[in-house]
Amino acid sequence: MKKILVINGPNLNLLGEREPGIYGDESYEFLTTLIMDKAEELGAKCEIFQSNHEGAIIDKLHNARKSFDGVVINAGAYTHYSYAIRDAISAVKIPVVEVHISNVFARDEFRSKSVIGPVCCGSISGFGLSSYLMAMDALVKYNG
Amino acid sequence: MKKILVINGPNLNLLGEREPGIYGDESYEFLTTLIMDKAEELGAKCEIFQSNHEGAIIDKLHNARKSFDGVVINAGAYTHYSYAIRDAISAVKIPVVEVHISNVFARDEFRSKSVIGPVCCGSISGFGLSSYLMAMDALVKYNG
Amino acid sequence: MKKILVINGPNLNLLGEREPGIYGDESYEFLTTLIMDKAEELGAKCEIFQSNHEGAIIDKLHNARKSFDGVVINAGAYTHYSYAIRDAISAVKIPVVEVHISNVFARDEFRSKSVIGPVCCGSISGFGLSSYLMAMDALVKYNG
Amino acid sequence: MKKILVINGPNLNLLGEREPGIYGDESYEFLTTLIMDKAEELGAKCEIFQSNHEGAIIDKLHNARKSFDGVVINAGAYTHYSYAIRDAISAVKIPVVEVHISNVFARDEFRSKSVIGPVCCGSISGFGLSSYLMAMDALVKYNG
Amino acid sequence: MKKILVINGPNLNLLGEREPGIYGDESYEFLTTLIMDKAEELGAKCEIFQSNHEGAIIDKLHNARKSFDGVVINAGAYTHYSYAIRDAISAVKIPVVEVHISNVFARDEFRSKSVIGPVCCGSISGFGLSSYLMAMDALVKYNG
Amino acid sequence: MKKILVINGPNLNLLGEREPGIYGDESYEFLTTLIMDKAEELGAKCEIFQSNHEGAIIDKLHNARKSFDGVVINAGAYTHYSYAIRDAISAVKIPVVEVHISNVFARDEFRSKSVIGPVCCGSISGFGLSSYLMAMDALVKYNG
Amino acid sequence: MKKILVINGPNLNLLGEREPGIYGDESYEFLTTLIMDKAEELGAKCEIFQSNHEGAIIDKLHNARKSFDGVVINAGAYTHYSYAIRDAISAVKIPVVEVHISNVFARDEFRSKSVIGPVCCGSISGFGLSSYLMAMDALVKYNG
Amino acid sequence: MKKILVINGPNLNLLGEREPGIYGDESYEFLTTLIMDKAEELGAKCEIFQSNHEGAIIDKLHNARKSFDGVVINAGAYTHYSYAIRDAISAVKIPVVEVHISNVFARDEFRSKSVIGPVCCGSISGFGLSSYLMAMDALVKYNG
Amino acid sequence: MKKILVINGPNLNLLGEREPGIYGDESYEFLTTLIMDKAEELGAKCEIFQSNHEGAIIDKLHNARKSFDGVVINAGAYTHYSYAIRDAISAVKIPVVEVHISNVFARDEFRSKSVIGPVCCGSISGFGLSSYLMAMDALVKYNG
Amino acid sequence: MKKILVINGPNLNLLGEREPGIYGDESYEFLTTLIMDKAEELGAKCEIFQSNHEGAIIDKLHNARKSFDGVVINAGAYTHYSYAIRDAISAVKIPVVEVHISNVFARDEFRSKSVIGPVCCGSISGFGLSSYLMAMDALVKYNG
Amino acid sequence: MKKILVINGPNLNLLGEREPGIYGDESYEFLTTLIMDKAEELGAKCEIFQSNHEGAIIDKLHNARKSFDGVVINAGAYTHYSYAIRDAISAVKIPVVEVHISNVFARDEFRSKSVIGPVCCGSISGFGLSSYLMAMDALVKYNG
Amino acid sequence: MKKILVINGPNLNLLGEREPGIYGDESYEFLTTLIMDKAEELGAKCEIFQSNHEGAIIDKLHNARKSFDGVVINAGAYTHYSYAIRDAISAVKIPVVEVHISNVFARDEFRSKSVIGPVCCGSISGFGLSSYLMAMDALVKYNG
Repeated sequence: MKKILVINGPNLNLLGEREPGIYGDESYEFLTTLIMDKAEELGAKCEIFQSNHEGAIIDKLHNARKSFDGVVINAGAYTHYSYAIRDAISAVKIPVVEVHISNVFARDEFRSKSVIGPVCCGSISGFGLSSYLMAMDALVKYNG
Repeated sequence: MKKILVINGPNLNLLGEREPGIYGDESYEFLTTLIMDKAEELGAKCEIFQSNHEGAIIDKLHNARKSFDGVVINAGAYTHYSYAIRDAISAVKIPVVEVHISNVFARDEFRSKSVIGPVCCGSISGFGLSSYLMAMDALVKYNG
Repeated sequence: MKKILVINGPNLNLLGEREPGIYGDESYEFLTTLIMDKAEELGAKCEIFQSNHEGAIIDKLHNARKSFDGVVINAGAYTHYSYAIRDAISAVKIPVVEVHISNVFARDEFRSKSVIGPVCCGSISGFGLSSYLMAMDALVKYNG
Repeated sequence: MKKILVINGPNLNLLGEREPGIYGDESYEFLTTLIMDKAEELGAKCEIFQSNHEGAIIDKLHNARKSFDGVVINAGAYTHYSYAIRDAISAVKIPVVEVHISNVFARDEFRSKSVIGPVCCGSISGFGLSSYLMAMDALVKYNG
Repeated sequence: MKKILVINGPNLNLLGEREPGIYGDESYEFLTTLIMDKAEELGAKCEIFQSNHEGAIIDKLHNARKSFDGVVINAGAYTHYSYAIRDAISAVKIPVVEVHISNVFARDEFRSKSVIGPVCCGSISGFGLSSYLMAMDALVKYNG
Repeated sequence: MKKILVINGPNLNLLGEREPGIYGDESYEFLTTLIMDKAEELGAKCEIFQSNHEGAIIDKLHNARKSFDGVVINAGAYTHYSYAIRDAISAVKIPVVEVHISNVFARDEFRSKSVIGPVCCGSISGFGLSSYLMAMDALVKYNG
Repeated sequence: MKKILVINGPNLNLLGEREPGIYGDESYEFLTTLIMDKAEELGAKCEIFQSNHEGAIIDKLHNARKSFDGVVINAGAYTHYSYAIRDAISAVKIPVVEVHISNVFARDEFRSKSVIGPVCCGSISGFGLSSYLMAMDALVKYNG
Repeated sequence: MKKILVINGPNLNLLGEREPGIYGDESYEFLTTLIMDKAEELGAKCEIFQSNHEGAIIDKLHNARKSFDGVVINAGAYTHYSYAIRDAISAVKIPVVEVHISNVFARDEFRSKSVIGPVCCGSISGFGLSSYLMAMDALVKYNG
Repeated sequence: MKKILVINGPNLNLLGEREPGIYGDESYEFLTTLIMDKAEELGAKCEIFQSNHEGAIIDKLHNARKSFDGVVINAGAYTHYSYAIRDAISAVKIPVVEVHISNVFARDEFRSKSVIGPVCCGSISGFGLSSYLMAMDALVKYNG
Repeated sequence: MKKILVINGPNLNLLGEREPGIYGDESYEFLTTLIMDKAEELGAKCEIFQSNHEGAIIDKLHNARKSFDGVVINAGAYTHYSYAIRDAISAVKIPVVEVHISNVFARDEFRSKSVIGPVCCGSISGFGLSSYLMAMDALVKYNG
Repeated sequence: MKKILVINGPNLNLLGEREPGIYGDESYEFLTTLIMDKAEELGAKCEIFQSNHEGAIIDKLHNARKSFDGVVINAGAYTHYSYAIRDAISAVKIPVVEVHISNVFARDEFRSKSVIGPVCCGSISGFGLSSYLMAMDALVKYNG
Repeated sequence: MKKILVINGPNLNLLGEREPGIYGDESYEFLTTLIMDKAEELGAKCEIFQSNHEGAIIDKLHNARKSFDGVVINAGAYTHYSYAIRDAISAVKIPVVEVHISNVFARDEFRSKSVIGPVCCGSISGFGLSSYLMAMDALVKYNG
């Protein structure tokens, strides 16, 4: 049975409330339910972690390296400058998939650059909350 | 019944033979079989088109706008400079998903910029041939 | 009697249907009628050519050098990167006028750079379909 | 009866005398005659204004907003850095057409950038003195 | 009665001790007294929060969105790179005013760029400790 | 009794009429009344000067150095390129405060750079017409 | 017996007629004769291909990988932006030599960058039509 | 007796396990032993602190300013963007030495820029774990 | 008898008073005396003109073209961005020498670029008020 | 009888020993033998010069202008920054051909720019030691 | 017994006399004594070489490759542009340590880039003359 | 009696022969005579030094610091990249004046940047051989 960790970075806890034109109307709780249902469907174990703290995300990634088979990460705005999270992803040896709810390439210029992209195994953006589910599929079914 | 067009850009016809360390050992024929099987699984109609000609890809996109419900495109190297394909994607009103076999962010600097990304609805890269199947899933199941 | 070639580049065949907020509601057929009427008014012979293929545009420019007195070109997105079309314009010795329907300077950053501009004799942008007619006027009346 | 203001920026008063290889041999007086004749032909009222002072050009644009139907402006070198003239063009609500005698894209690098272009309705360059007449045509006949 | 949150970012706790030539001799305690006195004068409720942790500042901003009417933020060095704080400011719907003690434009090049500026409603810098008081005035009196 | 000079640069005379979505509906006359009322409230003498001419603004700054205690300047678009005004501010020894009605950091890229900022004592932007009043407060009350 | 393919890109068909000050007076036919004579001298088989179409050049490169021992390519203006041709050169495993008639480093800035250079085995420019013959020598004699 | 604080930033806790080709096979515990032995040899008191949290590193630096004579810091990836840590180093008045295990100049482009370098008294990189010991030597023996 | 025009741009009228550490303690009147004495010594006629208005400097340059043999210009801050003054220098056919009191290369980055330098016949900077006298010498004696 | 000078710049004396993966296993002596044999085959006189000193290379180029008919230069790393060698090549009037053993476009970014390229008549790179022989051929046979 | 070569680049011979605020008051002779004493303490043989000639430094590095076990180099200003010295360091196979007396990151922008850093094994800067001694320690003790 | 050293950098020994359109027809010997005559006229002692070697120029500058009162330097192409000569100029305490025969701002882009300019006391360019004489005048008469 696969164990998947889903990490949500800064401001994702405000999902549904925050810029709904970009991120949609569904709440963070709805997202967690979607993810847990998907895990069940895939026969996988899943933990969801959210933090606005760069250091806490790094700590969590470190801890994951012994107890999970893969990570789905939406690093929020840290995507664009956190070389520390990038190094944490390089340091743990399990596959990490980068996801984004919105199409980050169609927004502010600074959002088109991901500093964690080069060390993730793959990247999915623009499919709304489905981006997470697709990443879970990828980790479990396709690489399984 | 959904109708999906899969467009493969320059050099993808050499799949399996071309830089297998990056693109894998499976042939282009294997990819087409994978895609057609997936379409069947999804209950969708699918056509696969490959061309090394920028203009032919634009022509195909134009034709697709009346006869398909969505497009999966791997524009190959045109991804990085073909503003003409970008404009074609903007011009047709059906959803277009960008896919890449390799993680384009982990290779040459010039590959980290997609000029078509901002006008696609979403982007998937780094999952090998599965990138195509995930995109088909996204077009049919999630938005269905 | 002057002979004028009008070349339309990628995606212009979708005129009227494509982003009407930018390019207007009139169809490509309407444009061709406008141009032919203008030619008649000017007592000029006129041929209109459209292609989404960079190479076909170059071929057409080459052919034009012996049979036309001037060219009006809307190179579409090729305007911004086709150094090959630029070289074709330099190579033929008849005057070439660059036109754009929209004001390219008021849109995406990448559209503010024309690589063919430096080798055209003049440039007209932002007057809608009239940009073509003004260019025809310029070729026939003013330089005539 | 349309009322058109033609604004000429710095150094255009030296026309004919100044770098004739680029700007031609005809004098500024000749240009004014050409313009006034064109106005008569178009059945339009026309005033011509020239100043080397950025502020005077802004003042003139402000005044024009109540008494003219459109403006033709050759802002000379101010084209390339006068964000103040740009703001003046945005502030007045009548259409403003940018013109240049020479093909500004074929000269010094700094001349290929127009800071006023994005707020004009259209731009014409490279047709010698005819650039002005084409702009007048555009203001009166085509948009009339 | 208005409720204002004042957020101080990294290193501001060392006020008075840290580079007094730039930030002045007055201590952080002195600043808090100034702010609380101002709040009283304005008839407003005020809370002051300081943290060197980017994540803690984001958490605080999130919490503020239901219990405060406005925020005054001196994000310290996070001003120049924390897109995560920027997103937090966008996510909460109450007005946020950016303040700086020193004139950030007159110091190191990197300090002249604020990534949070575009999503704040206004910005005040260079007035010493008074920058805070002016921001409070702005939040309470002018928009009140 | 403090003497304050308020300088308004290019296009501010069109206040209320010019892009009201950005600059508000109130007229320039309304602004002058606001400022004079504020001066009275502060027990200060105040003169308001507006010009679209860079040179006239420099002349005024020079004259101010002997007869005023401080200057509030909204240099309009000159903010972004007038090194000549910058040098004038450096040359006069009285404090100069930079103000902007809109949040210049949230608009065109070119507006995020102020060449006069480094030589002003402080900067205030984004508070509408109140920006001026806050600057006057700063000059009179806080530094008083 | 070595088999060599010579590929000529856009506008080379106009040799002799096109900017003779740069490319010389000799016609394209003269070049083909020179190349075929050289092939005979070297005891090699040779085919010459010219196209203005990027896609056709890619197709030709693909076909060459099974039937030729090496390629001499003058990609014309595609040299400077065709990452698709670059990928085609990487994909075929036979050696490819880049040639230019003129010294591309002594002309327009954009001509000093070759995107295909990094994947060719060598590069020759500036020797007029002899550049081709030197490349053929290199393919046959030196690596033979 | 000198008191030295050694600060290790993000991901250094995974030493030995993380990219051993770059950082070596020795564990973090081994490093702490090396450092404590060195301290004993130098007759110095030493504390070692590790955190993945930018804010915690700032807090620690602040606390150090009263109880330590010098700091050795390996800020990990924060080296390249944490202006907040830079400001903390400027704020505390004890000497701070920057160290890196690997030669940061021989790796990714982004690692060649240190934002904390300009405010440290010196910098040592590329000597493996010895970099720390050399920094301790420098703090105690040479400046002692 | 040679006729020399000396043009002083913005803020030079405040000489002696303005940043004396850079521009020296001597007044503008002292400079004019120095220049007139030098003219007498050289047996030349000389006029000195100062303006803070870009347009007035252009007007003066235009007028000079018929009545002076050469111009010495210290364009002050206009040196760094006035392409309009540059064009005026190109337009008049008499030799123009650029002078600066301070060494502009040793100050702010923006001062190291002169947009008028390329069209002046020569440039002198850093010799204090003597820069003017050297330029007069150059115009009269050496080219005489 | 043609006289050819071959100049080898810095570090080429270590050929065979220096990074053989890039420059090959053959020694500098082997290269000199190859070159002298080629000269004999071509019926040319040849001198080979090597120096690690930029100035010595310039001196040699100067001396060559009277006694040689052409120069083959491998300027080593000076290729990328020695504008002084560039000026020396411009100053002597005999043809100079630039050669490189490795394909400089396929290595470090800084090696893709040649400051001497624009003033050489042609450039050859990537053919190993044969690059020299091809250049000699070009100087003697093709231009002979 | 280890043999160490210490290379000092341009202007280091003026130590003590040259900008003592940056490089200290001690003479070059004092430095040589410090180094020789350190060598004795380390039981190493040491030679010190100084030259202002780039080529002489390269020659010395070449010679060192057979007779020394390691090199300490302070390349002075050549650090920032001498790719020729960089290649020499790559070519010799003994370890080379880069040292600087001052903290090069805290001075002019151009000094923050070392072109030799990527090919040295390590780098030490900012410890005054002790930088040399630390490098010697590193070469002898730590790697010994 | 003043003692002046005149230093000429690379390629100046070819004066008269080298690109006479830029540097004039007069020989280097003619220049030396002009300079020695000027010295006599000024009652100064003068030595002229020319070298193509960067290191030799540095050595000469060092020697000059005890035996000369000032230096006139035309560093030729070293002007644009020799930070080593820049440091030498900073190190010696006598005034150094930068001269150029041609107007370096009107030529290649790279020639518009002087790395030695910021540490010279002044700069003169564009006056032909007179540039040297003006610099000598400046050193002797004006600062005398």
